[in-house]
Amino acid sequence: MSGRVCVVGLGPGDARHLTPAAADALGEARHLVGYGPYLARVAARKDQVVHPSDNREELHRARHALALAAQGETVALVSSGDAGVFAMAATLFEALEDAGGADVEIEVIPGVTAMTAAAARIGAPLGHDFCALSLSDNLKPWETVLARLRAAAEADFVIALYNPASRARPWQLGEALELLRGVRAGDTPVVFATAVSRPEEEIVVVKLAEARAEMADMRTLVIVGSSATRSLPRAGGGAWVYTPRKAAVPA
Amino acid sequence: MSGRVCVVGLGPGDARHLTPAAADALGEARHLVGYGPYLARVAARKDQVVHPSDNREELHRARHALALAAQGETVALVSSGDAGVFAMAATLFEALEDAGGADVEIEVIPGVTAMTAAAARIGAPLGHDFCALSLSDNLKPWETVLARLRAAAEADFVIALYNPASRARPWQLGEALELLRGVRAGDTPVVFATAVSRPEEEIVVVKLAEARAEMADMRTLVIVGSSATRSLPRAGGGAWVYTPRKAAVPA
Repeated sequence: MSGRVCVVGLGPGDARHLTPAAADALGEARHLVGYGPYLARVAARKDQVVHPSDNREELHRARHALALAAQGETVALVSSGDAGVFAMAATLFEALEDAGGADVEIEVIPGVTAMTAAAARIGAPLGHDFCALSLSDNLKPWETVLARLRAAAEADFVIALYNPASRARPWQLGEALELLRGVRAGDTPVVFATAVSRPEEEIVVVKLAEARAEMADMRTLVIVGSSATRSLPRAGGGAWVYTPRKAAVPA
Repeated sequence: MSGRVCVVGLGPGDARHLTPAAADALGEARHLVGYGPYLARVAARKDQVVHPSDNREELHRARHALALAAQGETVALVSSGDAGVFAMAATLFEALEDAGGADVEIEVIPGVTAMTAAAARIGAPLGHDFCALSLSDNLKPWETVLARLRAAAEADFVIALYNPASRARPWQLGEALELLRGVRAGDTPVVFATAVSRPEEEIVVVKLAEARAEMADMRTLVIVGSSATRSLPRAGGGAWVYTPRKAAVPA
């Protein structure tokens, strides 16, 4: 009897952004597999088995989910944000390919990803063409990261940076910002959105010239504006950041 | 007395992907403003006023929402997908800037955007760095679209194409695919995801060499793989498409 793995995106944090489809998938699973702090967001029932694991163990976690399903179990493999954006869905298919396939039902449930959640809190910075780029060089050479960043900046995409910093990767964001300062104007708005929709949420907008790597940690999503991105005063104080639909033509 | 505009993303179609935050915002509004077919997805109560408008009238619609709120009304300005991705949030801030500001409370509620919904149905094609690009040349020169497309392709991003085609824009996707065939391998997977999560959903995967503009209409989201994107057989028939986290280094 073959089982089932459902890869579930929890959204950015607050349960108000968890879709009914995701909530149903969590409820139907007998096993909940994922990174510990993400599983801690799920109110597991007593009849559910929770399998928390460490951050760096993605592939092991995906194999574990497939192995449980191959035994006939129903598994929710949990990600933050959207499961398909720098998260567990790609890892699950890597594990599936490595195993030469598996007689297991697989479903991916989409969620609200960090960049759209962050964008909504500050206005509409992703209002025109944009890229999502992971700054982690754990799985790709740093030169590839820089080449993509340069291409995106020169083509005037808004750029969302996932995984901008961690204790093990403290210098990458600084180098990325240096590169961007060589391409984009110094007054380009940069949004540092940390822990969006969670109680400790903090959103800081600075000009590119003043952006510093220390403004981000592993809970932060960074959005770098295009040449058209602008800032507006917000009624009640603070600023909105948005990118108009009629984007500027790159020089 | 100042009112409130809440820009709400409905998700791709099925109410199972509508977040509780979005549902609450719809429920709290006295006025529902949006493109007619999107408003038709909302079960309005008798005490709510529905203001459907035509597809091309985004800016007028945003001004209308602001005007109602300036009169003290509570308005939900409705988008499909995520409100901040090629949708009404940017338009609202354009209207706000044009008006020189407004004493109105504004909130943007994120949603599941078309590309992550489409990706989830076919596997994890957005599993690594990706771009979202609108193929519409209504608001930017076609040369800008092509320049961005070329930059994204050469830097080996996965590419999600929004607004690939409509009756008024029948030839743009064909030209875009021609450009991509000059940069990416002919066997690169291309996903045509139409009406995702709706009853008429249709998802077609072809090789780039075989991709044709006629495979898309205005309900379609197109995802073009990177050099690392691959296809796997799906238990039960069909294929999965995914991009591994360890992306290929561009040549």
